[in-house]
Amino acid sequence: MTQNIYDDDAFFAGYSRLPRSVEGLAAAPEWPALRALLPPLAGLRVLDLGCGFGWFCRWARESGAAMVLGIDVSEKMLARARAETSDAAITYARVDLERPELAPAAFDLVYSSLALHYIAALDGLLAAVHRALVSGGRLVFSVEHPIYTAPSAPGWSTDAAGRKSWPVDGYLDEGPRSTDWLAKGVIKQHRTIAGYVNLLLRAGFTLARLEEWGPTAEQIAARPNLADEHRRPPFLLIAAQR
Amino acid sequence: MTQNIYDDDAFFAGYSRLPRSVEGLAAAPEWPALRALLPPLAGLRVLDLGCGFGWFCRWARESGAAMVLGIDVSEKMLARARAETSDAAITYARVDLERPELAPAAFDLVYSSLALHYIAALDGLLAAVHRALVSGGRLVFSVEHPIYTAPSAPGWSTDAAGRKSWPVDGYLDEGPRSTDWLAKGVIKQHRTIAGYVNLLLRAGFTLARLEEWGPTAEQIAARPNLADEHRRPPFLLIAAQR
Repeated sequence: MTQNIYDDDAFFAGYSRLPRSVEGLAAAPEWPALRALLPPLAGLRVLDLGCGFGWFCRWARESGAAMVLGIDVSEKMLARARAETSDAAITYARVDLERPELAPAAFDLVYSSLALHYIAALDGLLAAVHRALVSGGRLVFSVEHPIYTAPSAPGWSTDAAGRKSWPVDGYLDEGPRSTDWLAKGVIKQHRTIAGYVNLLLRAGFTLARLEEWGPTAEQIAARPNLADEHRRPPFLLIAAQR
Repeated sequence: MTQNIYDDDAFFAGYSRLPRSVEGLAAAPEWPALRALLPPLAGLRVLDLGCGFGWFCRWARESGAAMVLGIDVSEKMLARARAETSDAAITYARVDLERPELAPAAFDLVYSSLALHYIAALDGLLAAVHRALVSGGRLVFSVEHPIYTAPSAPGWSTDAAGRKSWPVDGYLDEGPRSTDWLAKGVIKQHRTIAGYVNLLLRAGFTLARLEEWGPTAEQIAARPNLADEHRRPPFLLIAAQR
């Protein structure tokens, strides 16, 4: 099973204080771009891989989804998701995302926000997702951007001329990266963009759209601390079709 | 028309001395990976966008292509290509790649090596290529990698701990980049990976394969000066299908 850092007490406490944990989707600056990749949700059966506190599951139902299944590896997050949800059409389940057992053709849309970069055996998960989607069904997900996850020493550097840049090395070396984010030794999987795309194609998906997300000028004006995120994209968003 | 730097005397002299100009495809370290994206060539009608000295055109014929058209904007390169080719099934033509006039469904394969990053109006070119391909036909091309073209100050930097890295900034800002490569002020178009992919999808292509090329361990052992190219990919290779 993938490292379940979300059930670490210190990590969970820190994660729970993030704006996106407190305020939900609206506090995630990439949400408008991710939402733009979604089909109209009316009547759809939706699966959320790594549902966390259930913000997307509830939004999907409010947007007309017929039923929503949210799965996650974290007991703590699922407990809070259940406590904050009163809708019989939303179900939460604890599932190891490395090897989920999903009924064939059970979903019209599979969604995942910032979860798949924790998965080591992504090929197996994508095969399971492909089987779980109806023909024409869509997979929409975000992950940390490969330029963001590549460096052996992630962090901004400033040269003698005052230019701020992101020090890319090891980009082509896919595999685990240990970072100190909310807790020491959080393990994420670095993959190249081609790595993600070719895994999708090999699983039988067709690529519908790729977005390397950075904040808009309006977002930077409203939240100046987002400015650096425009120098190199922090998130990769992908829409694929079965 | 795109800047025609290849007909600049100094640039042409420098370019003519590059290993890939002297020795052809075998001297291009990314060639085996690019070749792996090609379909079997027997009987195919092939178009080479930015054919240069015609190395690929001649290789395509030797590999069984029925006819090959090589187009380029550089008179000097076309003159040498013609001088080195004696094959009635290979034609060379001077064409502005920004707005080529190509007959509909005239080709089974369109190929391009390190030329499309010079094209400002890539959407128009891709539309023309899409029309020029038969249904099921393939477009295979290489460009300089967006991580390579992004920086405002391209060049390796070494931090206090001796780590060598590539200083990415401006990645999301697509547009012209002026670099001093063989001549001063060579203009190339920086695009993101998503930029290339979404232009292809919008033109009606489906994505078949994406490669972020770096040298293999064997290539680095044989040519140690390639080692840095593994830290961040210098080339992006794409195969798409009409």
